[in-house]
Amino acid sequence: MDDPVLLTGAAGRVGQAILGGLADEYEWRLLDRDPPTGDPPGEFVVADVTDEEAVREAMEGVSVVIHLAGDPRPEAPWDSVLTNNIDGTKIVYEAAVDAGVDRVVFASSNHAVGAYETDDRTPEMYRPQGDVLLDGTELPRPSNLYGVSKAAGETLGRYYHDHHDLSVCCVRIGNLTEDHPPIDYERGQAMWLSYRDCAHLFDRAIRADYGYEIVYGISDNDRKYYSIEHARDVLGYEPRDNSAEFD
Amino acid sequence: MDDPVLLTGAAGRVGQAILGGLADEYEWRLLDRDPPTGDPPGEFVVADVTDEEAVREAMEGVSVVIHLAGDPRPEAPWDSVLTNNIDGTKIVYEAAVDAGVDRVVFASSNHAVGAYETDDRTPEMYRPQGDVLLDGTELPRPSNLYGVSKAAGETLGRYYHDHHDLSVCCVRIGNLTEDHPPIDYERGQAMWLSYRDCAHLFDRAIRADYGYEIVYGISDNDRKYYSIEHARDVLGYEPRDNSAEFD
Repeated sequence: MDDPVLLTGAAGRVGQAILGGLADEYEWRLLDRDPPTGDPPGEFVVADVTDEEAVREAMEGVSVVIHLAGDPRPEAPWDSVLTNNIDGTKIVYEAAVDAGVDRVVFASSNHAVGAYETDDRTPEMYRPQGDVLLDGTELPRPSNLYGVSKAAGETLGRYYHDHHDLSVCCVRIGNLTEDHPPIDYERGQAMWLSYRDCAHLFDRAIRADYGYEIVYGISDNDRKYYSIEHARDVLGYEPRDNSAEFD
Repeated sequence: MDDPVLLTGAAGRVGQAILGGLADEYEWRLLDRDPPTGDPPGEFVVADVTDEEAVREAMEGVSVVIHLAGDPRPEAPWDSVLTNNIDGTKIVYEAAVDAGVDRVVFASSNHAVGAYETDDRTPEMYRPQGDVLLDGTELPRPSNLYGVSKAAGETLGRYYHDHHDLSVCCVRIGNLTEDHPPIDYERGQAMWLSYRDCAHLFDRAIRADYGYEIVYGISDNDRKYYSIEHARDVLGYEPRDNSAEFD
């Protein structure tokens, strides 16, 4: 790929996992409202994702957008997720379509479906013998208003895919941690995503051919209750990590 | 039911269909940003649904809310649906929970799923021999940004149902017309909702026991590609009209 890949929210944790694995694989254009710490692996635009003009400018000449920017706090208040996550994501899709971008990879979240984890299902569903429950075809059941905003971002992606020539992959990111899975936290182990699997998953989402997809972004954990079959099928995702290996 | 039923967007078309059939069945509290024309069948509050204080005040002593208010235009611009439909609906749910309301009936729309009507499926899917395609378990595929906002309202309802003691029924309203179905418009005939079936459907949504439901609000049309089985099952909906009887 010769065109730059635009990464919004580049300074966040997911951005750092992606760049940690793929800094040299692409020409990056990085956007974040916080200026870079250290030497960024590409042109760096300091701008808020709700700054439509800045987003449009950052989109010039880009074929692929990885859209991570937004308020990442599960407990974020409504006003913030309405502005930063819902409106901000609409601004990114709209600018992408107008700039002729081919695909947008959208950082959705396990919090879009966290309320499937009902009292009568947990903690059994977090355990290896539990059934895989969710495959990405289910309706959202958000844990919180942050999750509502992520579900809205997925629906916006569906709209822009259906009405414009734009491939969209929504990645419901699990529990991303560096080095080792969460300790003494069954839910986090079930939805663990290692840094290297994260970088690989987004690498596949940049390269593979697809239409509109919702995939779960987790490692190949024994405990998982999210299916990774769709990510394998449509993206060629081949995770190498499993939280059980750290028990 | 002794407590008043709050009807937001009371002056709109759906509100008029509901009140036309049910004016004498309940004690109504009506809210609309436009003042009433004629003599309203209940206390009338002139307020915008985005006016949080007015909405909270209107919610006092209410057991059931029928939330219709919002920008009803399929072609409404994003800024309007973001504010009036998404944020406005969040304000209504939040106020309902805080006021101890038992249930919210939310006016969703066929536009939340309009993009299932792809070129290769239409116009066959609008015809009596077509398969019933959608039953309310499918992910949204909005026709437009208005449809995106309605899907977001459904997801907000799911969140408030899961996290609070609130029953929520989302009605994906079809093509509501008075007297007779649309003429020379197959899609409109397939999703026709007569005024009396509309009033009956909302009557059932006020009275029946349920949790979180998504139902299609259409008459028993021969042409239908939306299932009304779930509305029959959970609400006891028994439509009396069928657009085919007007052919």
